[in-house]
Amino acid sequence: MQHNLQDTISLLERTPAALDRLLRDLPEMWTLRNEGANTWSAYDVVGHLIHGERTDWMVRTKVILQSGEDQPFERFDRWAQARESRGKSLGQLLDELARLRAENLDELRAMNLQPEDLERRGRHPVLGVVTLSQLLATWAAHDLTHLHQISRTMAHQYREAVGPWTAFLGVMQCAGHSS
Amino acid sequence: MQHNLQDTISLLERTPAALDRLLRDLPEMWTLRNEGANTWSAYDVVGHLIHGERTDWMVRTKVILQSGEDQPFERFDRWAQARESRGKSLGQLLDELARLRAENLDELRAMNLQPEDLERRGRHPVLGVVTLSQLLATWAAHDLTHLHQISRTMAHQYREAVGPWTAFLGVMQCAGHSS
Repeated sequence: MQHNLQDTISLLERTPAALDRLLRDLPEMWTLRNEGANTWSAYDVVGHLIHGERTDWMVRTKVILQSGEDQPFERFDRWAQARESRGKSLGQLLDELARLRAENLDELRAMNLQPEDLERRGRHPVLGVVTLSQLLATWAAHDLTHLHQISRTMAHQYREAVGPWTAFLGVMQCAGHSS
Repeated sequence: MQHNLQDTISLLERTPAALDRLLRDLPEMWTLRNEGANTWSAYDVVGHLIHGERTDWMVRTKVILQSGEDQPFERFDRWAQARESRGKSLGQLLDELARLRAENLDELRAMNLQPEDLERRGRHPVLGVVTLSQLLATWAAHDLTHLHQISRTMAHQYREAVGPWTAFLGVMQCAGHSS
């Protein structure tokens, strides 16, 4: 199935607002707790998404368009948010994510990418050769993997509270494929 | 850990708006596709949540308060939405979910449930004895299990499009614990 860039943009423009509606002013029991050592809370995930807006998706798009396979992408720092979110409220982070995402999508639309651009190739430091189409599709799927993670992390807080219903709740069986 | 009813209500009042922001006017490629035979699309899930608002959570709350363990809950029809959503747009379903949820939460708040009420017991037709506390916590966790499912179902549509990145996306490894 061909990747349709408009479908990708349609999702990317909605997730920050969806996260805002879910998380803003929610009790910290939901937003600051994680699933145990070396796992992320919803607050951590929003910081991680911000770091992606700053250093990953559009930066790599430009690397592909400018240098192709010659210049491997910089590695992505999966723990940058521990440093960058320090001292910020979740509300501030949600505002920042919305602003950065809107700016990035404005820039992406202005590029007016054509089908032949989407087939251009870059080099991922671990995965090897990838296309611009795959990078942009992954940007959207990455939102979804973290929405999946947030819903699981929040449900984890109610593992005891739901009593025997845990058997009927799929999210309670999820082993945490997203770290 | 004690179940805090205010935490539960805080989540329950946010999920319909979060789903609205995520799904409204999103291309049908995202909202109408499922994961294969006998699985649900995002559209199906919203219909299922509506059916829960009508027939499950508050109805069972009243059964517990009025009849305790004597009267088992009615079984929940997990496929009712195939019938009840027919002919309705996703936008209509999102409006209906928001309205029913707000009405149910108004009614729940008006009950002014006390800790001793939350310990009252009812009888689930399969799980046996459950408490009102567990029922209400499950209402919130049920939102999360379906947010988890929707994010997985939508990500499934991009399984090919992301190319080698599928290895890094936890949601792509999720086997679908939520049916």
